[in-house]
Amino acid sequence: MMHFLRRILIGRPLHNQEMIREKLPKWKALAIFSSDALSSVAYGPEQIMLILAIPGMLAYGFIGPVAIAILILLAIVTLSYVQVAKANPGGGGSYAVAIHNLGEWPALTAAASLFADYTLTVAVSVSAGTAAIVSAFPELAVHQVVLDIFVLFGILTLINLRGVRESSSTFVIPTYAFIIGIIVLIGAGIFQSFQGTAPAIPPQSLEKQLNFPVFYLLLRAFANGCSSMTGIEAISNGVPMFKEPEVKNATKTTYLMSGILGIMFFGITYLLMHFHILPIEDVTALSQIAEKTFGRGFMYYYIQITTMLVLYLAANTSFNGLPPLLSILAKDGYMPRYLGTRGERLSFSNGIILLSITAGLLIFFYDGNTENLISLYAIGVFLSFTIAQSGMVVHWRKEQGSGWMIRAVLNAFGAVITGIVVIIILVTKFFYGAWMVIVFIPIMIFILKKIRHHYNDMAEQLHLPVDEIEATFNTPIGKNMVIVPIASPTRVVAETLKYAKAISNDVIALHIAIDEESGKRVEKKWESLRTDFKLVVVYSPYRLVIQPLIDYVSKLEKAKAPEDFITVLIPEFETKKNWHRLLHNQTGWVLRTLLILKDNVVVTTIPFHLKK
Amino acid sequence: MMHFLRRILIGRPLHNQEMIREKLPKWKALAIFSSDALSSVAYGPEQIMLILAIPGMLAYGFIGPVAIAILILLAIVTLSYVQVAKANPGGGGSYAVAIHNLGEWPALTAAASLFADYTLTVAVSVSAGTAAIVSAFPELAVHQVVLDIFVLFGILTLINLRGVRESSSTFVIPTYAFIIGIIVLIGAGIFQSFQGTAPAIPPQSLEKQLNFPVFYLLLRAFANGCSSMTGIEAISNGVPMFKEPEVKNATKTTYLMSGILGIMFFGITYLLMHFHILPIEDVTALSQIAEKTFGRGFMYYYIQITTMLVLYLAANTSFNGLPPLLSILAKDGYMPRYLGTRGERLSFSNGIILLSITAGLLIFFYDGNTENLISLYAIGVFLSFTIAQSGMVVHWRKEQGSGWMIRAVLNAFGAVITGIVVIIILVTKFFYGAWMVIVFIPIMIFILKKIRHHYNDMAEQLHLPVDEIEATFNTPIGKNMVIVPIASPTRVVAETLKYAKAISNDVIALHIAIDEESGKRVEKKWESLRTDFKLVVVYSPYRLVIQPLIDYVSKLEKAKAPEDFITVLIPEFETKKNWHRLLHNQTGWVLRTLLILKDNVVVTTIPFHLKK
Repeated sequence: MMHFLRRILIGRPLHNQEMIREKLPKWKALAIFSSDALSSVAYGPEQIMLILAIPGMLAYGFIGPVAIAILILLAIVTLSYVQVAKANPGGGGSYAVAIHNLGEWPALTAAASLFADYTLTVAVSVSAGTAAIVSAFPELAVHQVVLDIFVLFGILTLINLRGVRESSSTFVIPTYAFIIGIIVLIGAGIFQSFQGTAPAIPPQSLEKQLNFPVFYLLLRAFANGCSSMTGIEAISNGVPMFKEPEVKNATKTTYLMSGILGIMFFGITYLLMHFHILPIEDVTALSQIAEKTFGRGFMYYYIQITTMLVLYLAANTSFNGLPPLLSILAKDGYMPRYLGTRGERLSFSNGIILLSITAGLLIFFYDGNTENLISLYAIGVFLSFTIAQSGMVVHWRKEQGSGWMIRAVLNAFGAVITGIVVIIILVTKFFYGAWMVIVFIPIMIFILKKIRHHYNDMAEQLHLPVDEIEATFNTPIGKNMVIVPIASPTRVVAETLKYAKAISNDVIALHIAIDEESGKRVEKKWESLRTDFKLVVVYSPYRLVIQPLIDYVSKLEKAKAPEDFITVLIPEFETKKNWHRLLHNQTGWVLRTLLILKDNVVVTTIPFHLKK
Repeated sequence: MMHFLRRILIGRPLHNQEMIREKLPKWKALAIFSSDALSSVAYGPEQIMLILAIPGMLAYGFIGPVAIAILILLAIVTLSYVQVAKANPGGGGSYAVAIHNLGEWPALTAAASLFADYTLTVAVSVSAGTAAIVSAFPELAVHQVVLDIFVLFGILTLINLRGVRESSSTFVIPTYAFIIGIIVLIGAGIFQSFQGTAPAIPPQSLEKQLNFPVFYLLLRAFANGCSSMTGIEAISNGVPMFKEPEVKNATKTTYLMSGILGIMFFGITYLLMHFHILPIEDVTALSQIAEKTFGRGFMYYYIQITTMLVLYLAANTSFNGLPPLLSILAKDGYMPRYLGTRGERLSFSNGIILLSITAGLLIFFYDGNTENLISLYAIGVFLSFTIAQSGMVVHWRKEQGSGWMIRAVLNAFGAVITGIVVIIILVTKFFYGAWMVIVFIPIMIFILKKIRHHYNDMAEQLHLPVDEIEATFNTPIGKNMVIVPIASPTRVVAETLKYAKAISNDVIALHIAIDEESGKRVEKKWESLRTDFKLVVVYSPYRLVIQPLIDYVSKLEKAKAPEDFITVLIPEFETKKNWHRLLHNQTGWVLRTLLILKDNVVVTTIPFHLKK
């Protein structure tokens, strides 16, 4: 039943040889790598406005300058990442760059930042995608979190466990549909604004006043707007997937993506100011702009639905990013081993599940509220940007290729700028949630180091030098004392004793008696059976069954030679029906759990299958 | 740590000999057995009023007649139960009476009714107790369910797991304090009403109009009021606990209890009508009466607090009733065995936990609302009354003692009347929740029968006739093929192989290789070790580890002789720290769970203790 459901939902296992890598043409690569970056125009300009629309501050007019600052930052980061693409570092992103060039600490900082960031990307994109559709259909507002959770577990997790190709063409359509929709929206909006058919801007609303509180707001708005830049590094991580010439194509695609992102970001921000959009609950700014431009017609719904799709797709990019990173971390010993292996569908199933659960918790605790989640966002992104750029500086210096100085300088400049952005985000969003990320990163690094430490310890303890191996097998093998706990002589006991005889000549049947009377009764019955097994009766006036048994084993343990084994045989009923299991107590399980803590005590389960 | 907490909360284990039974004098027995019955005046009259206070129906005046009908019913049930006490049936109540006199079906019906009833008593009494204190301190209203759950798990469950003596004197004080308080309240109220100092009754409010809808309301009010009669059977179940002459003392105590209950019920109902009490949210009727009589002074708080205490005490009586009943059912094979044995504190711990969880769920799903819970209540009580009385008729006929005819007639009359009450409750409360009980009882009977069936089947399968026993031990014992799954030759593998050698000469080391290359590597390494163990390499191109192993075992299983064993040795890491366990996958556990399903396949866990 479970198996059948699994096959339907997840699909048949895939053979090792079914892992193929397709080379992507530029037009396909653009759609696949840029959904995360491009989709952020759905919430980025709004996040700037949310801060500056504060009443009584005359800050709204600063939306324009803040947007321009972000566009400049975008240009710098793009140039830096083109350098990264040229170095062609393969998978792993900032972590891989850092571990090769900067050492363990920066690498783990990058890993922790990326972990925070990938999970936040999922939470933010899913929430924002649902917000887009809730804006169009307000009656869905009460189900927002339920929708988020359904999209996360019912769609994203499932298709990723099936192991969908990153390169599937189905992913290309929504991204282009979204780009076209937004370009049409911007075109129509700007055309109307010049025609004067759109509502005019009240000029006084754009009056500006700069003082210290407003300046602080500007920095906060800038920090919020930086969330638009997440995902810009995706192409540089995917260089090997491009068609030849790989680097050249990747570079071109990066410029193209940044260009489109810049145009869309600028256009949306322009319209947002033009219509003087203000925050409305359960309606996104983009929805307001589309409604003001097109009315509630076909184009409006087109914009909302493609926005939703591209945002869910953006969430999906994290599923292509974090599980491979976890796998690299696992191979380096920083994460549990089982995150390092591919599941039966060739996807990193455990990593996918870990990502889904973490993002699900974030959505749940933040009630699917994009604005609140954004407060946690961006700091991790820019921290990993800074580390990656710094790593690249070291990389160019080591390589000393032609024109390495210019490249190093470009990356150094990027590192400085993104480093400054980290500080701005940290200061302005500290109390709004950035502190959580600041607390999280050191804890995560601590955990990563602890895990590595444990695996190192373990490897040391498991290592068996070749010369010791023969010695191990040539030492005399000790006796094996077998203990069979019995209640009364039933068929189960007979079966268990038969096995005991097969593995040892030193078998003790052990009976725990609650009072002398019942103990005597069992002793008498045992004698009448005339077996050659010794019966030991232990009295337990406190009606405990497990403790006296453990005590008996401990006593034997002290008496035995170090090379001897003690084996405890525990019969286990295998019931015909699942619910029958509830009718049997779990003494066997408890006993097993406690005995296994002892050295040289082996616990053996003898199954007894009930036929009905 | 856990152990320490357990000792603090539950106490040290008790020795078998610490189980003593104290004989109770009448004054103590009254308090101990009657808290359930007497405390119900805190909600019984109110439950009648809630139905009849419906506006526009002129039904309020019928509260009096309905109360009188209930008093008559009380007299009949009391007389019937005095007969039950005379038969002195020991523990188990209706179930015991029915199984000895009426057969399995009525007995199981009684058992199911009692189960429903005991859990409802806990839920209703705890909710009503909290309602009493919330009436006095309205600021607690928002925490009502939390208080209920705390009282249930934090106090009642805990003290019962400790195994408090039913006869503890601390239980006597609240009951008498409650009786005194209510009597003073009734006295003061009636005195004031005759003095004319209390607010006068508006006579028109007591106008009555009888038509079909009102008649139906009267029946519903009567059905609700019957909830006051729960617990009346408690004394007849506890006859052996009375001082000599047991039966005479029990009879006297029953009359006394019924008398007090009748007086209190009548008095409270009188005052309720006198003050024309109407439903107020979060304030009980008794609280309104006490406030109108005494004002918010000492006596008011005294009444509310003693009411709360006696209601919590009433909930506690179920903890003395259901676990022993479950234990009797378990001994008869109708309930899981582990409900039949006493825990280390001599209490039926598992039954106590089952009762607490069920009652907790009821409180949680009904939001601690007494009125809604009452809808489920009483039907089970009266069903078990009817069965017990019918059983007594058969009992007297079988015994044919002196005057058996009169006794039989009295019980038959009781059976008929309580049977009619069952029908009234069923009809009038069907849609208000009684249908749930009607659905529950057959399901419960079905479950009880299924459990018995399973235990019968099992006993049959486990039974080993004496002549077969010797045969079993004299058959030749088969070979034992030992399989040791290995990844690479580490210290763990060496330890495991040593044990394998100790229990068999037929050991196979099994390696699951994901590709040929890694398979070859392991084979080469193995050869270089020059051990005398055979290595088998199995290829798994789908990267599965568990399935190929299971398949290999299945293949061996088909080839082996029926008396041969297959033993699979699974090493298990015992980590130094608990969290390290998260770093190891649970392959061993999964393997064990799957292999144990096979016949004649024994799974042995070899512990490997990591020292750091």
